[in-house]
Amino acid sequence: MEAIRIGIAGLGVVGSGVVRHLWANADLIAERTGFRLEIARVAERDPARPAALGIDSSLVCPDPLDLARDPSLHIVVELMGGTGIAREFIDLALRQGKGVVTANKALLAEAAESLVGLATQKRVPLCFEASVAGGIPILKALREGLVANRIISIHGIVNGTCNFILSSMTQSGQPYAGALAEAQRLGYAEADPTLDVGGFDAMHKACILAALAYGFWIRPSDVHTRGIDGIAPEDLHFAKVLGYTIKHLAVVQCDEDGAVEVHVGPTLIPSGHVLASVAGVFNALAVRGDVVGDTLFYGRGAGPDATASAVISDIAEAASALTQGYHLPACGIHGLYNRFRPFADTRSRHYVRFAVADRPGVLAQIADVLGRHQISIASVFQPKEHPGEMVPLVMLLYRAREQNLRDALAEIARLPVTRGEPVALRLEDFDR
Amino acid sequence: MEAIRIGIAGLGVVGSGVVRHLWANADLIAERTGFRLEIARVAERDPARPAALGIDSSLVCPDPLDLARDPSLHIVVELMGGTGIAREFIDLALRQGKGVVTANKALLAEAAESLVGLATQKRVPLCFEASVAGGIPILKALREGLVANRIISIHGIVNGTCNFILSSMTQSGQPYAGALAEAQRLGYAEADPTLDVGGFDAMHKACILAALAYGFWIRPSDVHTRGIDGIAPEDLHFAKVLGYTIKHLAVVQCDEDGAVEVHVGPTLIPSGHVLASVAGVFNALAVRGDVVGDTLFYGRGAGPDATASAVISDIAEAASALTQGYHLPACGIHGLYNRFRPFADTRSRHYVRFAVADRPGVLAQIADVLGRHQISIASVFQPKEHPGEMVPLVMLLYRAREQNLRDALAEIARLPVTRGEPVALRLEDFDR
Repeated sequence: MEAIRIGIAGLGVVGSGVVRHLWANADLIAERTGFRLEIARVAERDPARPAALGIDSSLVCPDPLDLARDPSLHIVVELMGGTGIAREFIDLALRQGKGVVTANKALLAEAAESLVGLATQKRVPLCFEASVAGGIPILKALREGLVANRIISIHGIVNGTCNFILSSMTQSGQPYAGALAEAQRLGYAEADPTLDVGGFDAMHKACILAALAYGFWIRPSDVHTRGIDGIAPEDLHFAKVLGYTIKHLAVVQCDEDGAVEVHVGPTLIPSGHVLASVAGVFNALAVRGDVVGDTLFYGRGAGPDATASAVISDIAEAASALTQGYHLPACGIHGLYNRFRPFADTRSRHYVRFAVADRPGVLAQIADVLGRHQISIASVFQPKEHPGEMVPLVMLLYRAREQNLRDALAEIARLPVTRGEPVALRLEDFDR
Repeated sequence: MEAIRIGIAGLGVVGSGVVRHLWANADLIAERTGFRLEIARVAERDPARPAALGIDSSLVCPDPLDLARDPSLHIVVELMGGTGIAREFIDLALRQGKGVVTANKALLAEAAESLVGLATQKRVPLCFEASVAGGIPILKALREGLVANRIISIHGIVNGTCNFILSSMTQSGQPYAGALAEAQRLGYAEADPTLDVGGFDAMHKACILAALAYGFWIRPSDVHTRGIDGIAPEDLHFAKVLGYTIKHLAVVQCDEDGAVEVHVGPTLIPSGHVLASVAGVFNALAVRGDVVGDTLFYGRGAGPDATASAVISDIAEAASALTQGYHLPACGIHGLYNRFRPFADTRSRHYVRFAVADRPGVLAQIADVLGRHQISIASVFQPKEHPGEMVPLVMLLYRAREQNLRDALAEIARLPVTRGEPVALRLEDFDR
């Protein structure tokens, strides 16, 4: 049986998970694939990490570029993170004709176009299943399982930290700060949680999903990105009363004109939709294809085990391509879509909440502004339990252009009968 | 761009769907895969079918074996169904070195061992993603995406007819016959629904799932198969009151000893579990792996469109393997498991319902019988709204061996204080 020599760069939480599971299930993987995956070298600056796993120190070097240059390695795995040395490492390894596996979504969102181009040119596999939604084989599903489909839309819960915090706020009614602290206590949020709660991690994943679905790379700076750090418990509450659940979604979709939109942010979805039942740190992606209809893929999106599952499947796939000499395309780049719709021009339903004076005529003034911006009101909800001078006024709006909504909200914010900035959240009924 | 010549045998509902979608998305598929999938020949006895699709009559022949013999075809697609001519067709095509795609689960359950062996020997692709759960790429997920995992369990809603009928009975409280008639009216059940409602279709799929998960073929006759035709509305009702939903599940799992069990039947699952929210004709499979943890795959399990999505992805994969000259294993057959646990020796929790005399001491007699068979009671529920001489007594039992339960129930049925056959349904808490 052929042995595939693998070099792993980075033995942090994920890297250690890959080593443990690769060893534990080595026989099974060999039976299923026909080759043995052998951890031949490791690049890691902290000698305690390989030692803790029982990796012989002779296999360990501090410099990842040594792995990229080593002609005896067939595949290298990049699990260092960051966009500096990681990029240099992948670039060099691809030029040396090695297969490369990475989970680095930030790097891919930034540099995938050039790295995928290089891998295609060298005809070597570049695999990154672990970069989106951890253990869920969603990239494989998009690239192969749903290859017959025009992808109509992808709505993904792709950040476990955001989903944990929103689930926790929805269940307990506690404010954002408390839910964040709980997530940090449980290890579901970093000490500096910005990358997750600010929506940037989800945005990186959205860029990768969009490339798989529509065959071109979208610049991260073009993706409208909103986090969950501004979410108020009362909006979660009002949404629930109206039959909706707020989830932090990465949205990738194509409209009737063939223009692609990609954005990330908290969104109301019907509480009866399968996505609404995805709680805690779990991830899920609802993919609608023109042939298959509605599908959903669910699983753990992060953590050493789920991520290792995806990394090892990528290693096995790269090994199969290398040993059998076939080309495994990282991503089908083509020119059939290639048109990006700026966020301001996208259309959506919305949930809006205003703080208004509790007197007659207020609704008429607000409705008038909305109407002049071509925005129709679907329903109005005025909670009665709020005494005081200013009361909340909640509306669900029909589909409207984003820029029209912004203009209308700015005008409404200037009305003397309202106070503060209106709250606006996208609402997705999945009924298109 | 290379053209792949495809022959399609059978232009029924699914075959026609494949032709329509292959044509509609031909450009997209070509951009993504790098080759054009060309429908070069069709075998169909009814000339009206190809004519309705606009297929030139010169491409149509009545005998599928002509396609299997045609040296100009790269791939043939078997969509005739049945286990007679379909088997002959696939066997001959594989011997001629063609790639074969089929959705025929009944044939696979019966003959996959020999057909997969032949494909492996000839090193040609034999693809059957469409045979299980329609458009959900579950076989690909098991074979590739989760290749790093020991599969702990698969719990699948894999028959849309059963799921529609159970969902409908649960929602409306109507009896089985009414829900079946509704399903037939909507085209979700055949005039003779036995294959679906008797559980046999789900059993065929369970055999295929087990082979993918555990690397050996299980005989259909070894799979304990129970349908939904005996389900009473009151059991759906009592389950709901106790926090459970009854779903018709295909269960494929491996216990701590490495023995594999496969069975099919109505099962209580917690109403909060994601599987419980799968309604109507949709399919879903909850797969638990030792590395990835819990995953779930959801989508349409049948119908011309969802099935076409899977058939076309199989064609694309077979085309890629044939043009690049690599071997695409149909199924990783190996000897690491290979031990089957007979149903009578499997262990499970259960829901049981007895019709008992409404007087003191009855519970003690039943509990005594259960206890003597090493079966512990988790909870007892006696609905109060049932007047009359005999009343229902519902129990949830802890995990017990199937044979012990059968023996206990037979003994309880003979007690003078009970009447009729006890009802017993498996209960899965997903907490192992």
